[in-house]
This record gives sequence, structure tokens and C-alpha cells, in this order.
Amino acid sequence: MTYCVGLQLDRGLVFMSDTRTNAGVDNISTYRKMHTWEVPGERSLVLMTAGNLATTQAVVSLLDERNLAPSDRNPTLLTAPSMFQAARLIGETLRDVIATQAGTGPKAAATFNATMIFGGQVKGSPPRLYMIYPEGNFIEAQRDTPFFQIGETKYGRPILVRAYDPEMDFARAVKLLMVSFDSTIRANLSVDTPLDLQVYENDRLELGYSRRIENTDPDWRAISEGWSDALRRAFDSLPDIAL
Amino acid sequence: MTYCVGLQLDRGLVFMSDTRTNAGVDNISTYRKMHTWEVPGERSLVLMTAGNLATTQAVVSLLDERNLAPSDRNPTLLTAPSMFQAARLIGETLRDVIATQAGTGPKAAATFNATMIFGGQVKGSPPRLYMIYPEGNFIEAQRDTPFFQIGETKYGRPILVRAYDPEMDFARAVKLLMVSFDSTIRANLSVDTPLDLQVYENDRLELGYSRRIENTDPDWRAISEGWSDALRRAFDSLPDIAL
Repeated sequence: MTYCVGLQLDRGLVFMSDTRTNAGVDNISTYRKMHTWEVPGERSLVLMTAGNLATTQAVVSLLDERNLAPSDRNPTLLTAPSMFQAARLIGETLRDVIATQAGTGPKAAATFNATMIFGGQVKGSPPRLYMIYPEGNFIEAQRDTPFFQIGETKYGRPILVRAYDPEMDFARAVKLLMVSFDSTIRANLSVDTPLDLQVYENDRLELGYSRRIENTDPDWRAISEGWSDALRRAFDSLPDIAL
Repeated sequence: MTYCVGLQLDRGLVFMSDTRTNAGVDNISTYRKMHTWEVPGERSLVLMTAGNLATTQAVVSLLDERNLAPSDRNPTLLTAPSMFQAARLIGETLRDVIATQAGTGPKAAATFNATMIFGGQVKGSPPRLYMIYPEGNFIEAQRDTPFFQIGETKYGRPILVRAYDPEMDFARAVKLLMVSFDSTIRANLSVDTPLDLQVYENDRLELGYSRRIENTDPDWRAISEGWSDALRRAFDSLPDIAL
């Protein structure tokens, strides 16, 4: 599995993804699931992927190849006139890759599906955050639903639902994501460090702070260990129940 | 869906189940998923069910009917010589019901599967806690895996993993289960109050404290609202991250 979260804040976007992929429990590898493109001053794009690794790698490779050989008839990620058009391009590429893999050759028991979170900004319109489905269609984050999760989403959801605040600053948002990832990693073998972090500040039009968070990262260790204690203290602070 | 948890403590067993059943999102009902049997001084049994409601109701009805017409060749829940034999009886009944429903008549898109948590004590041996699979086989809780969850298990797992302590008293265990259920209910429409609670104290051989917890229950409200605040305070108490 995988765990990726894209958060929309008043001041920008924050993305975090894990790196574990597995085909069964006896074939585990580390792959980066976060991909970025930018034209400084003009556009900054972040894509996170969950699902079949062959599918997501093919999608990213096709998007990259198109960037190298742009044509008027085929817009590319680097030339699409808006985030909406860029999301459409990714969705179509994803759908085509799945259709090709699923429709020909030997059949596999596993599906070739993948789901993606895509966010960023193209000059001239505000930042956008999308979730793209294997069918190629997509939905956009809004004030009422200000974040998307893909992959192993359930363990890390309760803290997101409760502690998310659109006005939070980036440092606090990263802390929130670390807690959400820590809850997931502790409960599920199929998600693990290192994590990739990318911050995008509204209207900056270049990728902002990014970081690879290893298991030994001091901030990560402090959050992971601190959260266990804080959670136990929070639990202790609840009123007792008379049986 | 459903959410049920059975906890094994040093001093006994604690069971909690929700009551929401749904066939799609437009057909939602309240059904008790916790069933108990006892022969005071001799045995106390608790069964919680998740999965196809027709299957679980049929299993419980068959178990009850057998109790009314016992025979030497067919042991019943009230005469099985051990918890192991009682679990076997439930497992066989479950497997037979699923096989009957799945093998005949019109085919349904939904499966007829169900999973169950079964615990209690029969005089002469220690209390036991089992998870019973649709195939009829089952596993027993041990010191390393001291609780079972069925249904919508992921949202409520992180707090169980972190705050469970085999030495905790019943009041604290109930508080822990309430937090775990609250996390699940807030994140998922398919689990909801009222909740059923049953406590069994080792070697008492009669069912102990039980309670139906409505949404308006003062303890439940205190935990549910207190947990939001406590969680936010816990989050605030974590060290800040420098980006």
C-alpha cells in the first residue's frame, strides 16, 4: 500500500507521501511516490501516486516524455494553460495506461488501478488541489473538504479530521501530517519511512521547502515518540467512568 | 459496516459493539450485534457479530434453537464442555449458514460472510477470547495480541495499540473502548451509537456489568467531547518543527 496526503491551507499546499511499495509481504521496496515539475515564476506542480507501481511509473514517464517533445496538439504538464487542464492531462494519461495494461496480454489477478493527488499553481489562477481517479476523472478540494488522502487512509484520518485548521502555518501542518503518518505506520506494515515532504506557498510559483524524512530524522523521532506520550496523557486526562 | 472490539485484561474481558447496519447508505437500521448466554455459576458467553446481517441472525437463531432442544449428539452453547468446543460449534454453524446461503437460490453480488468475536468462560478453565472466521476456523487472543476488532477496524486501532495495558481496570478499559469507538464513529458513517457494553470478570461465571450507551449518555458525551479537546492539546504539546 501507500499513504499520501495533500492539504490545502489558506497560505498554500502541503504534500506528504511515504515510500513503501510491496507486492505481497515478501517483496518490499522503497520508491518515491512524489513527483514535481516547475517552471519558476510560471508554474509549480506536485503529483503523488498510490496503486499499481507499473501504472504510476508509466504515467509519470509518459508525462515526462511529452514535456520533452511538446506539440500544439498535445499539451504537456509544462504548457497546460491551467491546473484544470493539467489535471485532465494526467487523468487521461492514467486512464489510457490502465486501459492498455488491463486490455492486452496475460491477465493478472491484481488490478492495474492507481489513484493520484495533484496540486500546485499555474500563473493567473489560484492554487488547486485535485484527487484523480483511475477512470481519469477528478475532484477538487474545497473549503469543506480541504485535504485528500490516498492509499492506507483510515488510521491517520481521525487526527486530520480533528486537528486540521485552514489557518495553520506550514510548520504546524507538517507536524499534523507527521502525526497522521506515524499513526498509520505504527498500525500498518505497508506504509513506512522515509517520507517525502513538499510545501508550496500561494503565488510563489516555485516549489518551496522540501525534505526527505528518514526514520532517524530528529523531528520525526520527536513527533513519533512524543505523540505516544501525549496520546497517553490525553487519555489519562479524560474523566473516569463509573461502572 | 460494524465495529466491535473484545479486550482481554488480566482481570477479565470487556466487549463493546455498535448497532448500525446498512445495506447501502439509504437503508440504515439499528440492530444489536452483541449476544450473551449464561448459566450462572457455570458459564458466561458473549458473541459479537460483523458482516451479513441475515447470516449472523441465522447463526444466533440456530444456536438458540439448539439450546432449546439439546441432544447428546449435538452439543449446544449451554452444554459444550469448554470455550474451545463452544467456539467450534459457533464456527461450524457460521460456515454451514454461509454455505447454504451462498450455494442455493438466486446469486447476490454481496457475499454472505460474517466474522465474530466470541469470549467468556466455562467453569474449570480460564476465560477465553476468540475471533471466528467465515470459514469456521478461529484464533485465540494471547498476551501478544490481547484484543480483537471486527468490522471497521482501522480508525479506532491506533489508540488501542498505544493505550491498552493488560493491567488496566474495567472503568479504564471502557474509557479506552469509548475513545476507539468515538474515533471510528466520527470518521465513518457506517458505525454509530447506541453502543452495547458487556464486562466479564474472571471466574465470576456470571455476566457482569452491561450497559447500552446512547448518543446522549453523559459519560459518552464527556469522552467524545473531551477527547477532541484532549487530542488537540496533545497535538499542541508536541515540539514545533523548524522548516
